[in-house]
Amino acid sequence: MENFEFLSPTRIIFGRGVEQRVGEEAKKFSGKVLLHYGGGSIKRSGLYDTVAASLKSAGVEFVELGGVQPNPRLSLVREGIGICRKEGIGFILAVGGGSVIDSAKAIAIGTPYTGDVWDFWANKAEPKEALPVGVVLTIPAAGSEASNSAVITNEDGWLKWGLNIEINRPRFAVMNPELTFTLPAYQTASGAVDIMAHVMERYFTDVKHVDLTDHLCEAVLKTMINNTAIALARPDDYNARAEMMWAGTLAHNGLLNTGRLGDWASHMIEQELSAIYDVAHGAGLAVIFPAWMKYTFQRNLAKFAQFAVRVWGVEYDFEAPERTAREGIQRLEDFYRRIGMPTRLGELGIGDDRLEEMASKSIKPWMTTMGNVSKLTRDEVLEVLKLAL
Amino acid sequence: MENFEFLSPTRIIFGRGVEQRVGEEAKKFSGKVLLHYGGGSIKRSGLYDTVAASLKSAGVEFVELGGVQPNPRLSLVREGIGICRKEGIGFILAVGGGSVIDSAKAIAIGTPYTGDVWDFWANKAEPKEALPVGVVLTIPAAGSEASNSAVITNEDGWLKWGLNIEINRPRFAVMNPELTFTLPAYQTASGAVDIMAHVMERYFTDVKHVDLTDHLCEAVLKTMINNTAIALARPDDYNARAEMMWAGTLAHNGLLNTGRLGDWASHMIEQELSAIYDVAHGAGLAVIFPAWMKYTFQRNLAKFAQFAVRVWGVEYDFEAPERTAREGIQRLEDFYRRIGMPTRLGELGIGDDRLEEMASKSIKPWMTTMGNVSKLTRDEVLEVLKLAL
Repeated sequence: MENFEFLSPTRIIFGRGVEQRVGEEAKKFSGKVLLHYGGGSIKRSGLYDTVAASLKSAGVEFVELGGVQPNPRLSLVREGIGICRKEGIGFILAVGGGSVIDSAKAIAIGTPYTGDVWDFWANKAEPKEALPVGVVLTIPAAGSEASNSAVITNEDGWLKWGLNIEINRPRFAVMNPELTFTLPAYQTASGAVDIMAHVMERYFTDVKHVDLTDHLCEAVLKTMINNTAIALARPDDYNARAEMMWAGTLAHNGLLNTGRLGDWASHMIEQELSAIYDVAHGAGLAVIFPAWMKYTFQRNLAKFAQFAVRVWGVEYDFEAPERTAREGIQRLEDFYRRIGMPTRLGELGIGDDRLEEMASKSIKPWMTTMGNVSKLTRDEVLEVLKLAL
Repeated sequence: MENFEFLSPTRIIFGRGVEQRVGEEAKKFSGKVLLHYGGGSIKRSGLYDTVAASLKSAGVEFVELGGVQPNPRLSLVREGIGICRKEGIGFILAVGGGSVIDSAKAIAIGTPYTGDVWDFWANKAEPKEALPVGVVLTIPAAGSEASNSAVITNEDGWLKWGLNIEINRPRFAVMNPELTFTLPAYQTASGAVDIMAHVMERYFTDVKHVDLTDHLCEAVLKTMINNTAIALARPDDYNARAEMMWAGTLAHNGLLNTGRLGDWASHMIEQELSAIYDVAHGAGLAVIFPAWMKYTFQRNLAKFAQFAVRVWGVEYDFEAPERTAREGIQRLEDFYRRIGMPTRLGELGIGDDRLEEMASKSIKPWMTTMGNVSKLTRDEVLEVLKLAL
């Protein structure tokens, strides 16, 4: 087990109706709030009205900035920073999923910084202060509601880069599973894939003696496998939605990699995919992760066999553990198909014409290989992408 | 699943050598610290010197209060409050296990309070402020290093009562598994029983649809079962000690009962046992918990069968699930015996002469029954105690 530090300082407020309390929670931080959200779905669902009423009744003044897109854009972040400075905003309330939260995090660290906010993503500066951020979560997927991570897309070059730093963690997350009843099936399934990927990025490690976190990872994966199918069959099943929502937070708040090192190659490869083709992150991961597994499983056969046995109930083949490991990957692919996710690039309408470009871009300027454990070269990333065809 | 709020604000600093950083961590809170500890073991082991040197080199002044006993006493808490007030202490550093930490928590809430600190345990007042507390953990057991709980024994009537309140949570916990290498086998095993009991108190609930936390509980239990045996066979096995130590924290920081209600009858019964006979808390739990299980398992047969199958690998008996449930309880008892723990009162030298007194005292003045799920009357507690004979 590796040494670690762990602090998850986000207050989780979870259950039916909790979004009605957001005004009083926001007021603990500031009387002037930036209300940040995406498209019109929160207006259609009535959530916008609930949040606005809660803020007003708590005596909190707010300025709005909607329009966050999936794969949130740097230009809107810059606009938000301008608003926060001009209006003297003291707190950012993100109402939405990971894109909205990530955008809010970027505005939060950009506002007190004198340089350009992209400096933080380009490794040119480190954020020292931030406006506090709160969340009303509507999509269980990215885990951004309690994570230290923010992924922003710079339209200048379509660079989709992540920044993982403790100051990014929200102060509270208001999580009502009922708000997810209306998520379309495709988005529900994409979210499930993203959550499972967050766990698996941590699970497949070379660090030995990580029993507890292995078992915790398996707990979250089994929960997701059981409950995603239920939520797709019955979108208003409160308990299945609740399991997915809480699993999504725990998958990415750092608990599951205490004492271990994650890999993250699949995430980095997928980021290039969705930066170029603008596919849903989860759908991209459903294609890339199994391909990465097929390329790398022989480097840590024991762990992939364990994954098959403990997560999928595959019977261990004592004479041919490789067969066990392969069966685990197959079960994962089968599951993705069952929940309506693609498992090949072709299903996303992506051919082989820009694989070289994606492989090159996935190795960031400050890296020589990619992935903590798998340490893929650019040519190996290309092989992974070919396995995804 | 029940609505919940969850925040675990304790910074975990985990790994080899981390106790050397305690001075700099303490200094973030105050330049004047109460160094609180138990007997002489931290002096014999050299930990006292390491901590003192770390405080000095960080420029932190400290006053000492040693002498915390197992089942920490109210009289020492009062003495600590007097010292903190007189010396203008701004931070309490607990170096030890659960008893030392609980004593520190009590001093922390008692110092700024104008009345008598026992008021908080007697439900006469609620603490509104507290000195910040930090921990250097030496015994994985109570989970007090990140919990909201503090159990204090009032010598006037030998009342051993717990207080669970958010303000009790320490600000940081420094956790080096190497510090536990020298724990005697009996204390290692008692700690393991305590940790497992913290999980099982939460696991056996009537709340339905708690998949994720069920699986998380099972993850911690399986980890404890695997690693306790290793640590007993090889006391200096870093990884086994590390798994137990981190499991002990997660068992009791509140994560495992998000969305569910725990029971806690076994803990409350055991508190009377150790208040009267001063037995190790874990050893008492090894006797009481199986007795409680035997008395109550038919009230939630499905959960007890699940425990047997998922935690102990018992094959489910589809025709007689009761047999499966009984087998799970038997496996738990077998495990306790294997790690050198008692499973009957007689092994603790306790006869049947004071069972009535313990049963009566376990129902606190403000309660009519005992245990959230099991809701035992005084006469039923007596039956549990008889099953423990």
